[in-house]
Amino acid sequence: MKFRRSGRLVDMTQYLLNHPHQQIPLTFFSERYLSAKSSISEDIGIVKETFEGKNLGKVETSAGATGGVKFVPVIGNEDAVRQVDQLCEKLEDPARILPGGYLYMMDVIGDPKAMQDLGRVIASHYQDAGVDAIMTMATKGIPLAYAVAQLLNVPVSIVRHEQRITEGSIVSINYVSGSKKQIQTMSLARRSLKPASNVLIIDDFMKAGGTIRGMMDLAEEFQATVAGAAILTEAVHEEEKLVSDYVSLTRLTEVDVKERKITVKRGSLFDAD
Amino acid sequence: MKFRRSGRLVDMTQYLLNHPHQQIPLTFFSERYLSAKSSISEDIGIVKETFEGKNLGKVETSAGATGGVKFVPVIGNEDAVRQVDQLCEKLEDPARILPGGYLYMMDVIGDPKAMQDLGRVIASHYQDAGVDAIMTMATKGIPLAYAVAQLLNVPVSIVRHEQRITEGSIVSINYVSGSKKQIQTMSLARRSLKPASNVLIIDDFMKAGGTIRGMMDLAEEFQATVAGAAILTEAVHEEEKLVSDYVSLTRLTEVDVKERKITVKRGSLFDAD
Repeated sequence: MKFRRSGRLVDMTQYLLNHPHQQIPLTFFSERYLSAKSSISEDIGIVKETFEGKNLGKVETSAGATGGVKFVPVIGNEDAVRQVDQLCEKLEDPARILPGGYLYMMDVIGDPKAMQDLGRVIASHYQDAGVDAIMTMATKGIPLAYAVAQLLNVPVSIVRHEQRITEGSIVSINYVSGSKKQIQTMSLARRSLKPASNVLIIDDFMKAGGTIRGMMDLAEEFQATVAGAAILTEAVHEEEKLVSDYVSLTRLTEVDVKERKITVKRGSLFDAD
Repeated sequence: MKFRRSGRLVDMTQYLLNHPHQQIPLTFFSERYLSAKSSISEDIGIVKETFEGKNLGKVETSAGATGGVKFVPVIGNEDAVRQVDQLCEKLEDPARILPGGYLYMMDVIGDPKAMQDLGRVIASHYQDAGVDAIMTMATKGIPLAYAVAQLLNVPVSIVRHEQRITEGSIVSINYVSGSKKQIQTMSLARRSLKPASNVLIIDDFMKAGGTIRGMMDLAEEFQATVAGAAILTEAVHEEEKLVSDYVSLTRLTEVDVKERKITVKRGSLFDAD
């Protein structure tokens, strides 16, 4: 089936969106559309112009025999700020206050579109970090982790508190929960993370940072390097954090249970601005 | 910024892909592109033709004052069969056999692209079921659940074995694990599922069906109806299943630990073919 330009543009757009962070040779498209490479190059130029004009991501082209095209999902700074500010406002709803000063966040975490949009902010931040695996802690870190992983085109390793029998040999470590000062265990299936990966850690919430610190130590057991850690919401904590190399999307600066007042601000990812 | 047709097609394609199962008025696009509705209608015709020609999904248009366009992700039967057959082959690798006759599947579940592709098969099957929430069991059902939820444009409710303190009031039920005959507890935060939702249950694995049965009962506690249940891999089980209204993508028909042989076939979703 031969495609006219209009059909090629539609198909090429969906193909690139569904294959982020992958180098696709021009020959792939010229065979797919039975079209000359020169036409394909023009098509790519149009896609690139539209994507970059609308801040949908970068379309990187490379020339030569191995020439091709790569779609890198990014988000413009303005869009990122707008999305995170909306989230802050949403999180400040006093109806979220739970006993113990916890915040109800499952509606945000349960919204796949919100996870995708926020995942894009993180994937954009780490676009050049050479991430080749995402590590997260079950349960509530998983949705954001998959959103980021999909955009960076890397697999996810799910760390757990339990020691499940259905995943073969596991690696467990003890760690000290920073806020509760309790010794806990976290485990990861030996097979679920390739040794010497460059890991990006994703989680939904961080207080003192004990869980993140634990995941960093666990990564070391797999000879992995840590590209960074990104947190949906970081609670501002009076004591020293157990980790320093992380970014947060939002900062929970105050939960006043008595006055029923929550204050949420942009996280450290935006600090440099 | 005025768009030429080529730019409109690229942007409209990405917009529809990112907003599945949503009715988008023509006026939205004519304002977005500062273009006449007649041009927008032609654009949509081109997108529709390409999407449907490539089996990428349906583009439904409606006329009149409230006229608009809706993208419904579907997968052609051939593509679905090809994807599921590939999965079956992958799962038959004897290296997956774990003690107790379990199967290592975290590599498949940990692959966001595989989850998206398989999620599309399920979202396609339930495209007209009026699903308005996905329910899944932590941990391993979550990735597939989010893939389906994103395509159906509905939220996810995560049921858990533990009773976490950070989600406010929870609803718990006891259920009997079908294969182990043990009484267990599952819980869902009261706030995390709107009453009277039409729920699609997603899980990674099913043996006797006790967990699925439990989630169906739990749904009832929220006055929800159950649109169906979809399972990544169903183990063929000698005893009667505890549920009947479900579909599976794959069927594990044999795990011979001694001979190190696994047999995996297409699941019940394909039975009618």
